[in-house]
Amino acid sequence: MIVYFTFDPRPDLKEGLLQDFPTIEFIFHNNIDHTVLKEAEVVVTYGEDIEAQQIRLAEKLKWIMVASAGVEKMPQKEIAERGIVVSNVRGIHKVPMAESVLAHILSYKRGLAWIYEQEQKAEWNRKSKATELHGSTALILGPGAIGSEIGRLLQAFGVHTIGCNRSGNKADYMDDMISFSALQKALPSADIVISVLPSTPDTQYLLKSEHFEAMKDSTLFLNFGRGDLVSTDVLIHALNAGEIAHAVLDVYEEEPLPAEHPFWQMNTVTVSPHVSSHSSRYLERSLEIFKPNLKKWLEGDTELINKMDIIRGY
Amino acid sequence: MIVYFTFDPRPDLKEGLLQDFPTIEFIFHNNIDHTVLKEAEVVVTYGEDIEAQQIRLAEKLKWIMVASAGVEKMPQKEIAERGIVVSNVRGIHKVPMAESVLAHILSYKRGLAWIYEQEQKAEWNRKSKATELHGSTALILGPGAIGSEIGRLLQAFGVHTIGCNRSGNKADYMDDMISFSALQKALPSADIVISVLPSTPDTQYLLKSEHFEAMKDSTLFLNFGRGDLVSTDVLIHALNAGEIAHAVLDVYEEEPLPAEHPFWQMNTVTVSPHVSSHSSRYLERSLEIFKPNLKKWLEGDTELINKMDIIRGY
Repeated sequence: MIVYFTFDPRPDLKEGLLQDFPTIEFIFHNNIDHTVLKEAEVVVTYGEDIEAQQIRLAEKLKWIMVASAGVEKMPQKEIAERGIVVSNVRGIHKVPMAESVLAHILSYKRGLAWIYEQEQKAEWNRKSKATELHGSTALILGPGAIGSEIGRLLQAFGVHTIGCNRSGNKADYMDDMISFSALQKALPSADIVISVLPSTPDTQYLLKSEHFEAMKDSTLFLNFGRGDLVSTDVLIHALNAGEIAHAVLDVYEEEPLPAEHPFWQMNTVTVSPHVSSHSSRYLERSLEIFKPNLKKWLEGDTELINKMDIIRGY
Repeated sequence: MIVYFTFDPRPDLKEGLLQDFPTIEFIFHNNIDHTVLKEAEVVVTYGEDIEAQQIRLAEKLKWIMVASAGVEKMPQKEIAERGIVVSNVRGIHKVPMAESVLAHILSYKRGLAWIYEQEQKAEWNRKSKATELHGSTALILGPGAIGSEIGRLLQAFGVHTIGCNRSGNKADYMDDMISFSALQKALPSADIVISVLPSTPDTQYLLKSEHFEAMKDSTLFLNFGRGDLVSTDVLIHALNAGEIAHAVLDVYEEEPLPAEHPFWQMNTVTVSPHVSSHSSRYLERSLEIFKPNLKKWLEGDTELINKMDIIRGY
């Protein structure tokens, strides 16, 4: 049985796999090799490198393990039609992403970018415009595993949390919950608006001009979900019109963000190059999910941990 | 009765004082006026502008309210000899300082300075070296009001906290407690070493070369207490020799830090210009302590909130 990694893990992690599964032929490549693809039963991918025609080519493929959260760049229809099992690494982004979101919020509130600028100029200037996170209100779009972890940490800082999802059903670490349809009414009370929503038909371009108009002009907006939550033009207009104060973005409509994109030059925008889930422990943790799954698979059990619905997207 | 502010608060805050205390003559100045000083019964100061000879001049002075945490720049002996009551704003730094410390720690772990640099170059580069705060160990020198608040927040991030004070007596939100004498032995287990110690005879130059030698070479060191905790030379040597990875400093042996000081140019040092306690709500909160105290004072009650021992320093 061939397990095909479309990327090349750290030597110690590969070594661990070979030792734990001596009967399996592992192939590690930094790109898609059609000869290997044709023979592989299992493919492990970051979810951005497989096209529809390659799914057709991969005749023996029965399970795709996606070492990522989003599957919107995968040929969802072709995978579903073939009945290929898909599992992901849901949950492992929770810690690094929540830490990144809190880092950016605290950096903004405590003026770290300004401190770094003074340092570059070797200028002792104590006129910091620092404000406090404590006592503010945050609205969290998508209070799932990651959103709730952000909510938990924000509550520790004395922040009132409002969760917002499709149903408005209860979520962990949210003081209040609202549905997407109640969003417009809730926005004027938020000091911070954070999205960690995946890209689904319900969330694509969910945020429109009227939502930004409803926000406080002091609002800090963070998009750490997917770039198609809001159109670039709507966001640029909201910032330039002073409808909100600042945006920290980790995701974009177009990635990589082109060099000539206006976001790079706007000092009301912090450009994070889609790294919020990065962690020195990322792959290690992915394999901690993959290994027990591979054991199950060898025993004929296809009810994998983090098995997902490729069409629904989560 | 004259209450003399040696600084000029925001108009709305002054207005509030005048309304609440119509019988008192308030004088607000941005510097020390000897004529006023001679007549004032109460002086409100940030604690850096009064010299010994001015205490002698201030014949009617009975109470000094210090809108700051440290009193080491005040003529402590002269104040004590005269029996002048001193009160401070202990406790109001807790929230902004703990938020600043967490902001710097998270920024370091999640690579924010690097993200800001890429942004300045308009360069999409995803090779972030981000690590996680979760699962690390922090040693907190001075787990008092501020230190415990830092401990509480770190614990929420899944950090193991070790408190260190003179006695080794229990402190809030510390998983373990040690005394100053056990410091050397505890340092090798810490990923982060944070000081919020005041300057007292026990803490001056408490950290020596051997302490930095004992730390992990990956240690993040933060000094948010007082600059005389460690000599500049010892710290520079430890950083240049790779004994620790990075220092975030908010306090210095010499303040303002001179323009030619090596810290400005070292990329293993983050220079914060003594702003960690700054907050848009700072003076507002100071006055929330001052007003009930002034009411007590008018009633002849000198047992003020946050009354302190000027010689002991806290």
